Amino acid sequence: MRCSTLATFSEDSGSLRRTFLSPSMRDVHRKIASWLQPLGVQARIDAAGNLRALYPAAETSAPRLLIGSHLDTVPNAGAYDGMLGVVLPIALIEALDQRALPYAIEVVGFSEEEGVRFGRPFIGSNALVGALDEYLLAATDAQGTSVREAIEQFGLNPTEIPDAALDENAVAFLEFHIEQGPVLEKLGLPLAAVDAIVGQSRFEVSFQGRANHAGTTPMYLRFDAVAAAAEWISLVENTAKTTAGLVATVGSIQAKPGAVNVIAGEALVTLDLRHRTDEVRTRALAVLVQSAQQIARRRGLSVRCTEQMNQAAVALDSALTVQIEQAIQKTGSKPHRMVSGAGHDAMILASKVPSAMIFLRTPDGISHDPAETVAVDDIAKGIECGLHLLEQLAADPAFQKRTSRE
Amino acid sequence: MRCSTLATFSEDSGSLRRTFLSPSMRDVHRKIASWLQPLGVQARIDAAGNLRALYPAAETSAPRLLIGSHLDTVPNAGAYDGMLGVVLPIALIEALDQRALPYAIEVVGFSEEEGVRFGRPFIGSNALVGALDEYLLAATDAQGTSVREAIEQFGLNPTEIPDAALDENAVAFLEFHIEQGPVLEKLGLPLAAVDAIVGQSRFEVSFQGRANHAGTTPMYLRFDAVAAAAEWISLVENTAKTTAGLVATVGSIQAKPGAVNVIAGEALVTLDLRHRTDEVRTRALAVLVQSAQQIARRRGLSVRCTEQMNQAAVALDSALTVQIEQAIQKTGSKPHRMVSGAGHDAMILASKVPSAMIFLRTPDGISHDPAETVAVDDIAKGIECGLHLLEQLAADPAFQKRTSRE
Repeated sequence: MRCSTLATFSEDSGSLRRTFLSPSMRDVHRKIASWLQPLGVQARIDAAGNLRALYPAAETSAPRLLIGSHLDTVPNAGAYDGMLGVVLPIALIEALDQRALPYAIEVVGFSEEEGVRFGRPFIGSNALVGALDEYLLAATDAQGTSVREAIEQFGLNPTEIPDAALDENAVAFLEFHIEQGPVLEKLGLPLAAVDAIVGQSRFEVSFQGRANHAGTTPMYLRFDAVAAAAEWISLVENTAKTTAGLVATVGSIQAKPGAVNVIAGEALVTLDLRHRTDEVRTRALAVLVQSAQQIARRRGLSVRCTEQMNQAAVALDSALTVQIEQAIQKTGSKPHRMVSGAGHDAMILASKVPSAMIFLRTPDGISHDPAETVAVDDIAKGIECGLHLLEQLAADPAFQKRTSRE
Repeated sequence: MRCSTLATFSEDSGSLRRTFLSPSMRDVHRKIASWLQPLGVQARIDAAGNLRALYPAAETSAPRLLIGSHLDTVPNAGAYDGMLGVVLPIALIEALDQRALPYAIEVVGFSEEEGVRFGRPFIGSNALVGALDEYLLAATDAQGTSVREAIEQFGLNPTEIPDAALDENAVAFLEFHIEQGPVLEKLGLPLAAVDAIVGQSRFEVSFQGRANHAGTTPMYLRFDAVAAAAEWISLVENTAKTTAGLVATVGSIQAKPGAVNVIAGEALVTLDLRHRTDEVRTRALAVLVQSAQQIARRRGLSVRCTEQMNQAAVALDSALTVQIEQAIQKTGSKPHRMVSGAGHDAMILASKVPSAMIFLRTPDGISHDPAETVAVDDIAKGIECGLHLLEQLAADPAFQKRTSRE
């Protein structure tokens, strides 16, 4: 499987880590180009380090469908997150067997999505929507190298970044990606049409009570920050469980001073809250912040809630999503429609062109881990679904009349 | 105030830390000896580093009342925890103004109670009950120095440790100590008679679920270790609040991996549980362990509960406690009877001789902190109470007929 081959190109020995324009990325580019060449497709690297490969249409002025995902990885990564979405459209082009469609297909392998090297995700896709700006170019990695310098060191020319942006022939973006969650497995389905990417809030919540002796302080004279945090965490969980589609996570909690025999004077917890509808998320957040304050007040504590992230939900293109559902149906599977709980390149592209996503079932929901995998049968279903979709779009005059949103 | 003077003898500059037989302990011994000398009382240092000073009785064969507490401190300590219980009996002897009682008074300044240097508390008091054994002598500090070597380096002879043990003239032990809690302050009382020292359990409880993506894992497919721990912590608090005299504390909690956007796969919490009655504590513990298992099972998690400490409660001498209550009454205060939520030297001495404790009100319940203090008026009440108690015992034939329990 081609994803396994790509997974051998790593910065780390023994595990997969491939960050923005690292040397192993050059090997990945070469390998992908070697797969495309026999298909008569030339791969090039744009100034933001994205791999771009055009499978031409019957006519040169035809619209263009982009299909792709990212080629970078997290540390200790699996082989499919991102790469599958670059390898799969190559399989689609192979299956077309030189037959030209009424639209061109551009395979895109984004240079950066995970945000590992510079702490900022989506460097590659931002270039395609014209948002790889000076601010982003100035971001530095742990060695003090900026994005701009990394681009130059890779032999690319940052002044050409504007040329990487989509032209008006680009009419849509399609991304195949592993689900990275347990939903499709639970449903017993191989594929899903993704109709939205959740909005996300991150908060840091600090309950402040009074550190005291665990033996000499009776229960009624305590200002226990951990007990307050625990009460709130249960409420966070309950709020999410009773609000359709809401996910809420307290992934980190620290007690200070954090000794077995000292009542905690402070408890610092994180909150991650996601929903497809920003209004629902914002309302839930307000309720949770208010509850934290009520819990603190009732217990004689104080609480400080600090917003760390507030990222709006992104709706994907409804016409494309319907087409995807039909294509899934043609493969013999029940079409399932779901949201993505994680960010993806499609979220960035959606600001410029109608964008859509297809999720592939992820065994045990495991991703960002060497154990990450996809069933071969599910990949076959994904390719089959993709080919149905290409045919549907070829027969759809509305699709070909589309122009990019700008 | 003499406690402030002693607090200037520290291992650390700028804050008070005085561990077992550190050089600053020698200064403390000298200073205390200098206060005793004008009273005609000689201080000596026994082979376990305890300061011992005998105020003789009218007759040499008379019984002996020990009054004392510890001279070591925690790091960044206050001036009263321990020291007050050594300085106060010196004030009592001063007030006796050379008048001999029908029993001798031995002032004891224990060399070690906090367990800071060797991770084992009560080294000094263990010597008095004959329990400073080879096991304890072999314990080493961070530098690899053993208790035995520390004793030798201080110029003492470990082979003489058996001579430090109480002889049969020792008939009782009395300890004045700050409460280190908020109870007396809340009640508006200066003094309390302590009738028991709580038993204590310490547990480490690990909830083990499954780490997962905070965005892509719906609420109904989670195995969230932090959410399970939070549910249990609330239950711990509730159990203690509804069980008279029980205190239960989760002072530390760690989530793993502990990232804002990852559902915790493990939550490691500590439990500190104390009660004056071992049966109540044991029963509560069984309930809490069972609840942890039920919570884990219901959520599809596992849980591991590991006992770290199981220390029995110690009853103090009831006859002495009644005498103390009467003495407190004579000072014009309402006698309050309470348990000690923390361990004290009296707990060790109680295994050999009838022992009792008097607590002094602790402003804001603050101890083990430079802000630790005691009101001058409360110390005056403590001295007054102590003098009443000495007179009561002098007039009590039952007390003078007592012999040590062994």
